[in-house]
Amino acid sequence: MTYLVLLRHGQSEANRDNVYTGWSDVPLTAQGRAEAKRAGKLIQQTQIQFTDVHTSLLKRAITTADIVMDQIQQDWLPIHKTWRLNERHYGALRGQNKDETRKVYGAHQVALWRRSFKAIPPLLKATESDRRYVELGDIEPRGESLEMAYNRLLPYWTNEVAPRLLDGHNQLVVAHGSTLRALIKYLEEISDEGIDGVEVANGEPIVYQFDDQLKIINKKFLD
Amino acid sequence: MTYLVLLRHGQSEANRDNVYTGWSDVPLTAQGRAEAKRAGKLIQQTQIQFTDVHTSLLKRAITTADIVMDQIQQDWLPIHKTWRLNERHYGALRGQNKDETRKVYGAHQVALWRRSFKAIPPLLKATESDRRYVELGDIEPRGESLEMAYNRLLPYWTNEVAPRLLDGHNQLVVAHGSTLRALIKYLEEISDEGIDGVEVANGEPIVYQFDDQLKIINKKFLD
Repeated sequence: MTYLVLLRHGQSEANRDNVYTGWSDVPLTAQGRAEAKRAGKLIQQTQIQFTDVHTSLLKRAITTADIVMDQIQQDWLPIHKTWRLNERHYGALRGQNKDETRKVYGAHQVALWRRSFKAIPPLLKATESDRRYVELGDIEPRGESLEMAYNRLLPYWTNEVAPRLLDGHNQLVVAHGSTLRALIKYLEEISDEGIDGVEVANGEPIVYQFDDQLKIINKKFLD
Repeated sequence: MTYLVLLRHGQSEANRDNVYTGWSDVPLTAQGRAEAKRAGKLIQQTQIQFTDVHTSLLKRAITTADIVMDQIQQDWLPIHKTWRLNERHYGALRGQNKDETRKVYGAHQVALWRRSFKAIPPLLKATESDRRYVELGDIEPRGESLEMAYNRLLPYWTNEVAPRLLDGHNQLVVAHGSTLRALIKYLEEISDEGIDGVEVANGEPIVYQFDDQLKIINKKFLD
């Protein structure tokens, strides 16, 4: 049996302030750090021994991963950081208060942007001028639908995570609400409409158990 | 100009208790965490932008690296963890109080073990039964002279650190007292006898500046 554990970062300052984040690099709150530690304890109880940890280029996920790896006494594992696990890019909504955007754009439009698979938020005029994304060149997003995040996430799953699972190596992925929704959509073959209803809570580990063909045997939320 | 920053981890519980550590995986003390944060601030003032961080498989170095990377706002960098940067393996002296070993073996012998290049401490009877070292097989040490640590460290320098510096990429190495002494011996071509007098303090960054042939242009301690 091989295990994949998915974990959304603990509460960030933007979660607390009800603000769209996307690629803004906001830190965890004190509560977020406590949630990460608690998630680490829950994962520790499973006694799963990982060979790799995967996370994004954003500190709320990286710090969560660091805290969990320390807590489970597996901080010596390789940690792979990739923009492909970054949160969905929220474009020009970034930094805006969620209630405010409802007033400006209407509740229906905002609900589409937040939950539907294909709705694209208003794009940024230019990409980030951030050293960590320079290598992306033309593919650096200025705003993404969930579908766009799904499409840039999947090559990482296919090339870096799935082969390790097929080799029998347990993997831990610490990422973001939307990228984990996208990954769950893929893993569980959820329809474009069905993904609307899927939520991933901060700091609540999800454990998938696979057979040697990467078929899901079991799914469990740790709480 | 290319920069290499060397940093010994902050105070560990074993440093505090005056105990030989080697490959024992002891955590930082609160003071050690503060030292790591201070080191991060000092490195931040240099404004050096790194492309890679290298550390050992031991948590006192990993935690120090995590704290520094967070402090310098470069936590998204790849962090490479290798047993070759582990502290020198102190063999059967591990876990023993340094003053006690002087009483048992005599001050002269202990001074040789601690400071000379070639003295080998009493070996462990068996290797660690630790998952992280399984891939080492027969080359897993049961105790090392500084020379032995030097010899297993150098391939990592040659294959992973030096080529990146030659490409003009600044590198941060967070490691241990003995492995950093060994690396400094190599970089500065210090004699087997001369290395006796070289100390590396916890949490004090050393900045080397290289030309494009990897010749040292400047060396500076940050304090």
